[in-house]
Amino acid sequence: MERYQPCCKEEEEFLRNYNPGQFPSIAVTVDAVIFGISRDSAENYRKLDKQSLKVLLVKRTDYPYKDYYSLPGGFVLEGETFEESLQRTLENKTGLKNAYSEQLYTFDGVHRDPRMRVISCSYISLLDTRKARIKDAVWVELEEVSKLAMAFDHSFLIAEAVKRLRGKLQYTDIVFHMMPEEFTISELQSVYEIILGEKLLAAAFRRTIANKLEDTGKMTSNAGHRPSRIFRYKGREC
Amino acid sequence: MERYQPCCKEEEEFLRNYNPGQFPSIAVTVDAVIFGISRDSAENYRKLDKQSLKVLLVKRTDYPYKDYYSLPGGFVLEGETFEESLQRTLENKTGLKNAYSEQLYTFDGVHRDPRMRVISCSYISLLDTRKARIKDAVWVELEEVSKLAMAFDHSFLIAEAVKRLRGKLQYTDIVFHMMPEEFTISELQSVYEIILGEKLLAAAFRRTIANKLEDTGKMTSNAGHRPSRIFRYKGREC
Repeated sequence: MERYQPCCKEEEEFLRNYNPGQFPSIAVTVDAVIFGISRDSAENYRKLDKQSLKVLLVKRTDYPYKDYYSLPGGFVLEGETFEESLQRTLENKTGLKNAYSEQLYTFDGVHRDPRMRVISCSYISLLDTRKARIKDAVWVELEEVSKLAMAFDHSFLIAEAVKRLRGKLQYTDIVFHMMPEEFTISELQSVYEIILGEKLLAAAFRRTIANKLEDTGKMTSNAGHRPSRIFRYKGREC
Repeated sequence: MERYQPCCKEEEEFLRNYNPGQFPSIAVTVDAVIFGISRDSAENYRKLDKQSLKVLLVKRTDYPYKDYYSLPGGFVLEGETFEESLQRTLENKTGLKNAYSEQLYTFDGVHRDPRMRVISCSYISLLDTRKARIKDAVWVELEEVSKLAMAFDHSFLIAEAVKRLRGKLQYTDIVFHMMPEEFTISELQSVYEIILGEKLLAAAFRRTIANKLEDTGKMTSNAGHRPSRIFRYKGREC
């Protein structure tokens, strides 16, 4: 956005004397709900149903909520966009670089933080866990989150992010951020099933997804399995 | 959210001595992109194609951007949730009460406002223009917005809101907020067409929308028109 030009001397004067303190200021954090799907190693490729949706958490080292788990995130600094703040914080707290992310929601509860009024602009990220290198952060199965001591309203943030992720699965191509470049249709279907928490009919799934995929011409060659076609995502943006 | 309880004396001490000024504070506004569809009066009911998507704007009376058009909105006050702030501001600036709204996006540009850093949490509202009583605000046709002098990044906010509205039309029941309680399928189709900016095939539209509607058993009786069935929205939430 280009720099604002006052229209006249009077407005220049107005801006020079403007007291920013006349409206309350609020501290702003960005917090990332980072989803990944754990994948089994080649040795137990038959146990597809053991895969699960996970979320990346960090353990807090300071008050408040010291030793509680929280989403990776931090305060937005002067002159920083949310996206810049997010990427800086993620790299610091989890080692992740250039994670794909999109804004989820801004949480505005008045008493979210005991230190002061803090609003949280939350982002959803999706990762292919095989590519992502993580440090100082842990992947926690979604079902386990409710059993952990979670900081702030982050359990609620995660629940809202799961709802959004499930919705977006139906009407966007967001899922391909979690996929390797090449995959079989049943691998893709199993990712859908893990996120949605329900089994899908293979024929119907194939029909709805087909126009998003491109056949690589290759076939899988896992011993003990019938070979399957290998596809890639056809969309330009991913 | 329940009030936070420090775990120990040490944390009590930490919170008592916490300096909220160590992280930058940012002023926060809520801004509403309020959509309505102008409807023709009974006299010219044949001119369905003259309906248009409109957005509700107010004229700024103060610097900066004095005399420019802007979305109705205002600063979030101490102890106020975004929704409370939105309803207060809308009532003050447009006379609207209890408008349905949902969060669109938080705009975080560093130089959005020449006074100070201000982020805007924007909301989408949809109104049945026949029910809404408006004061001090004007309905502007979407196509006319680009010809107006618009304050801040509000043209951009409106463009983003239109994209979201078009998307949500496809996978949610949001449209019914713009409809009267009872309507014909062709009235509903024309609202879809106005928002999407394209003609739809009547048979296909009827098929996709049918399961959301309930037949009232009544028929229209406009002179010069074949009577049409009158429906209402079947969903509980609207």
